[in-house]
Amino acid sequence: MECPRGEGEEVLVVRNKQVILKDYVCGFPKETDFEIKTSDVRLKVEEGSGGVIVKNIYLSVDPYMRLRMRKPQPNPSYFASYSPGSVVSGNGVARVVESGHPNYKKGDLVRGITGWEEYSVITTPDTLFKIQTTDIPPSFYLGILGATGLTAYVGLHEICSPKKGEYVFISAASGAVGHLVGQLAKLKGCYVVGSAGSDEKVDLLKSKCGFDEAFNYNKEQDLDAALKRYFPEGIDIYFENIGGKMLDAVLLNMRLHGRIAVCGLISQYNMDKPEGVKSLMLLVSKRLRMEGFMVADYYHMYPKFLDEAISYIREGKIVYVEDTVEGLESCPGALMGLFKGRNVGKQVVRVGQDEVIDK
Amino acid sequence: MECPRGEGEEVLVVRNKQVILKDYVCGFPKETDFEIKTSDVRLKVEEGSGGVIVKNIYLSVDPYMRLRMRKPQPNPSYFASYSPGSVVSGNGVARVVESGHPNYKKGDLVRGITGWEEYSVITTPDTLFKIQTTDIPPSFYLGILGATGLTAYVGLHEICSPKKGEYVFISAASGAVGHLVGQLAKLKGCYVVGSAGSDEKVDLLKSKCGFDEAFNYNKEQDLDAALKRYFPEGIDIYFENIGGKMLDAVLLNMRLHGRIAVCGLISQYNMDKPEGVKSLMLLVSKRLRMEGFMVADYYHMYPKFLDEAISYIREGKIVYVEDTVEGLESCPGALMGLFKGRNVGKQVVRVGQDEVIDK
Repeated sequence: MECPRGEGEEVLVVRNKQVILKDYVCGFPKETDFEIKTSDVRLKVEEGSGGVIVKNIYLSVDPYMRLRMRKPQPNPSYFASYSPGSVVSGNGVARVVESGHPNYKKGDLVRGITGWEEYSVITTPDTLFKIQTTDIPPSFYLGILGATGLTAYVGLHEICSPKKGEYVFISAASGAVGHLVGQLAKLKGCYVVGSAGSDEKVDLLKSKCGFDEAFNYNKEQDLDAALKRYFPEGIDIYFENIGGKMLDAVLLNMRLHGRIAVCGLISQYNMDKPEGVKSLMLLVSKRLRMEGFMVADYYHMYPKFLDEAISYIREGKIVYVEDTVEGLESCPGALMGLFKGRNVGKQVVRVGQDEVIDK
Repeated sequence: MECPRGEGEEVLVVRNKQVILKDYVCGFPKETDFEIKTSDVRLKVEEGSGGVIVKNIYLSVDPYMRLRMRKPQPNPSYFASYSPGSVVSGNGVARVVESGHPNYKKGDLVRGITGWEEYSVITTPDTLFKIQTTDIPPSFYLGILGATGLTAYVGLHEICSPKKGEYVFISAASGAVGHLVGQLAKLKGCYVVGSAGSDEKVDLLKSKCGFDEAFNYNKEQDLDAALKRYFPEGIDIYFENIGGKMLDAVLLNMRLHGRIAVCGLISQYNMDKPEGVKSLMLLVSKRLRMEGFMVADYYHMYPKFLDEAISYIREGKIVYVEDTVEGLESCPGALMGLFKGRNVGKQVVRVGQDEVIDK
C-alpha cells in the first residue's frame, strides 16, 4: 500500500487483484477461461459524486454467473453477458473504505453487486444494502439473508403457494437455494423430499435440514422409478433447479394441479444444445403450472423476508449451510465446482481480512 | 324400424349403426382402426331409472379423442383410454326419444356425451344439457356454445388474463378453438396473429375472423424468423395448440412475464416419442408462465360464458366457422382429417335427420 501525494492531499493507491473473464466460455468453465490481474486502484471518490469504494470480504459464486459468460444471445436472454477482458461481477459482502454517497460512510458493512476483486469501485451504490445485525455472520447476507434466501422464499411461497400436507420435491436440494426451500416447506407443514449428488449430501438433508427423505440421483438408474418410490401419491410442488431428464421424470409424477417453480436448469448451462423435454403434454392432462421466476422481480419483498429469515436463524428454525473457500484465486475453481457438484450449500469465497470481523 | 310386441306393451326396436374402435391406435389414425357395426337397440327405459335414449343429430370430432385411442398410459394420463371393441364416445347434439329421467322428456334437444352411433343409451344424463335457444343452429352447441367455446374462453381469460394492447399469438388458429380465441382476444383489444396450414385458412383468419395478421407455417422455413416478422416487439400471450418446434420458436419470441396457455399439442399426438422442447431456460430468464388446462375444470363458468357467447353471436361480434361432413361413416375420416389439417373451424359430423331441425 503506497501513499503518494496528490495535489495538496494524500490519496491512497492500493494494488487490486482481480479475476478477469478472458473470453466467452464454451462448455464447462475452465481455469484457462480466467486470468488473475493486478492493477492499481486509487481509493478516492469525490464527495457528492455518489460513488463508493469497498474492500470485498466475501464473494458469492452462483450458477447464473455461468449464463453471463455466454456469448450475447441472439434473442434477449435477460442475463446480460459479461464483457471479455473485464472483472467478473457478482454479489459480495464488503467494507466501505471511501464514500461519496450520503447513505454510506467509511467503515459501513454492505452487501451488493461488487466483483471478483479485492476492491470494487461502485458507481451505482443504490444496489448496496447496509448490514445492521452484529449477531449474524456477515457472509449470511450472500446466502440465506440475501438473494439466495429470497429466491427460495419467493419461489416456494409466491410461485407455488404450498399448503400444509402437500408433497414437495426439490432437485439440487443440497445447493444454496435448495436446502433452504426444503426447510421453508417443512415450516409450512409439507412433506419434503430432495435429490442430491452424493450420499453425504443426502445425509445432510435428512439429518441436519429436516427433509423427510432424500436420495442420491447418481445411484438411481431410473429417475421415474425413484420418484414413484418417494412419492407414491405424486408430487404437488416441484422446485426446479436442474432441468433435462429430471424434469421429464418429475412431469410423469406430478399430481393434478401441481405447480413447478423454475428457478434454474443447471444441468443445461454448459450445453451448446439443451436437452429436449418430452413430457409437456402432461401439463395439459394434469393441469400443471410451470413458472419461471427471477428474484430481481421480488426485491420489494426483501424487508419482510429479512425480518422473517433473521427470526428463523435466531430461533434455530433453519439451518444454513455454507461452503467457504479462501482467496480470490479460488473464485474460478469454486464456479467450476458448482457444475461438478463439489459445493455443499452456498458457495462463498473469502477474499480478504476484515478488521472488525476478524477482531 | 320394427315394432315387436313386448309383454303387454309395444316397444320399438331400431337398427343402430355404430363406429367401433377396433384396437388401440398407433401413429396416425387409419380407416382400418375402426369398423362400422349395426345392432339392435330397444327404445325403452324404465320410468324413474334415470336413463335417457337419444337419437344423435350432430357429433363432435376433436383432437383429444386421438389421445383416448392410445393404450392406457403407465402414468395416469387423465385421458381415459377407450376400450377396443366399443363405440367411440364424444360430444353430440341429439333428440331425446325416450326418458326415464325427470329432467328430460321425449322431444327435448340436448347436448352431452353421446357416441359415434345413431342412437345412444345414456345412463348418466347429468352430463346432458338442454338446448333452449331456437334462433341458433343446434350444432353450435358442439362448438362455440359448447366445450370448444368454453375452452377458448377460459384458456384466454382465466389462464392468460389478456390486457388491451397485448400481443397474442395463436397456433392452429383456424381450428375449432383457435379461431374463437383470436376473436375473443380482438374483443379485448389485443393485437392478434394466428398461424395455420394453408393460404385459404390464412385468408379466412384475416378476412372473416378479424385477425390482425396470419401466416401459413408450411411456407416458413424458419418459424423463429416468421414470428420475429409478425411480432417485432415479441409475444405477450401464446395460445398453444401445437407443441414441438412451434413451441420452441415461440419461447424465443416471448416477452417478459408472458403467459402460455397450453390447450393441446396436436403435433405430438400421433408420435410414439414426442419431440423435445429445448428452450425452457427462457421460462426463467423471461419469467414466463406456462399452464396446461382442461375445460372440464371450468364447467361452473358455463352459464356465464353461454350468455356472453350467445350475445356475441346474436350481435354478429363473433364469426363461428363450422366444417360439417355427412353421415356416421364419415367420423373416422373426419378425425384423420384433423391431423392432416383438412378441417377449417370446428369439425362436426351430421349423422341423422331431425324432424324439427329439418322441417
